[in-house]
Amino acid sequence: MGIPQPSLNRLPQYHHYLNQLKAKGINTVSCSLIGLDLNLVPVQIRKDLQYTGIVGKPKTGYAVAELIAAIETFLGWNNVQEAFLVGAGNLGTALLGHERFSTFGLRIVAAFDTDPEKIGQWIHGKMVLPLEKLADLAKRMSIHLGIITAPAECAQWIAEKMVSGGIQAIWNFAPVRLNVPPEIIVHNEDLYSSLASLSWKLAQRFNIPFQQDGGSN
Amino acid sequence: MGIPQPSLNRLPQYHHYLNQLKAKGINTVSCSLIGLDLNLVPVQIRKDLQYTGIVGKPKTGYAVAELIAAIETFLGWNNVQEAFLVGAGNLGTALLGHERFSTFGLRIVAAFDTDPEKIGQWIHGKMVLPLEKLADLAKRMSIHLGIITAPAECAQWIAEKMVSGGIQAIWNFAPVRLNVPPEIIVHNEDLYSSLASLSWKLAQRFNIPFQQDGGSN
Repeated sequence: MGIPQPSLNRLPQYHHYLNQLKAKGINTVSCSLIGLDLNLVPVQIRKDLQYTGIVGKPKTGYAVAELIAAIETFLGWNNVQEAFLVGAGNLGTALLGHERFSTFGLRIVAAFDTDPEKIGQWIHGKMVLPLEKLADLAKRMSIHLGIITAPAECAQWIAEKMVSGGIQAIWNFAPVRLNVPPEIIVHNEDLYSSLASLSWKLAQRFNIPFQQDGGSN
Repeated sequence: MGIPQPSLNRLPQYHHYLNQLKAKGINTVSCSLIGLDLNLVPVQIRKDLQYTGIVGKPKTGYAVAELIAAIETFLGWNNVQEAFLVGAGNLGTALLGHERFSTFGLRIVAAFDTDPEKIGQWIHGKMVLPLEKLADLAKRMSIHLGIITAPAECAQWIAEKMVSGGIQAIWNFAPVRLNVPPEIIVHNEDLYSSLASLSWKLAQRFNIPFQQDGGSN
């Protein structure tokens, strides 16, 4: 039942692309066409899509609607995943207001913060609750997914509260590694690492001409 | 001058950690201690840090302040990277308001959108400009970094405008692969893929007990 991470990462892209085809009234599609449009190798596409249990037909390819449904089922998007979010700052607010998450099966049901000015406020229809209520509420509501959009300094402490509330998976936007029990699923969304990578590559690019021309001149 | 991507990704984490030490008044640190605190192998840490040109001393380890400065220089955080952002929705607004980016050398100098209701508005001190001005302004201001926080449907079109304006690197938050010339640096920040990965792993977890007990009972 395993699926390689890169294949898993590509499934939402296929899903988005297939929905575009569907909107254009296209009912079937081949791996070759998907490959051309998404800049991927057809053999890889076939493998990726096989994980959803769907195999294309030799001449016609895949039935678009069937494939969309299979991806959604495979990724669990039909079952709504309820989540708690901690850190009602700019990024937290953006995620709370991101309506398209619901298409992908995510519903953020409550936000938490420690800032007395934020607690009690409504953000995109969700009330900001005090952090000390998180563990208890997570247990009572059987919440399994936690999202951390708080500053790095508080992330570890928040993660521990989440774990004590029975949360099984953490989507961590704070730029620190979390120290949690090995059974907890952690996905780090590290914007600073991304930025570091981009800045470094750009810096290299603008240095390279001088080096290529020979350093001593 | 190459550095492996995982090493590059870890540098901001070391930077954050070292600043925490500095704030506590700690002046030197060893790889072993960093390893314990960040849950990493000391040998790996030593390799990562060597890319910045700093080598630890046998007994005392690294000088914290020196190492912080070396990481900042290496990642180009001392040179401010100016960027244009396209898509002044929830996520774009969050990034525009994210003051900590400036610590990491990023300054978003202007935002663009196609929505007449957004154009002319001020968001976190930046005016939202019409998208058709992007290419010309990017050229005149020598902007090399573009950030896409627009919907997937518009991302390719925006990327082309960026490239025509001389932008060299794109930080893409839209869930599509961009078709750009090979010399353009693209970093995809695909929140839907992250979500897909998390949902799938959670779904697996809650299915596993039934499968382990034997499917037929």
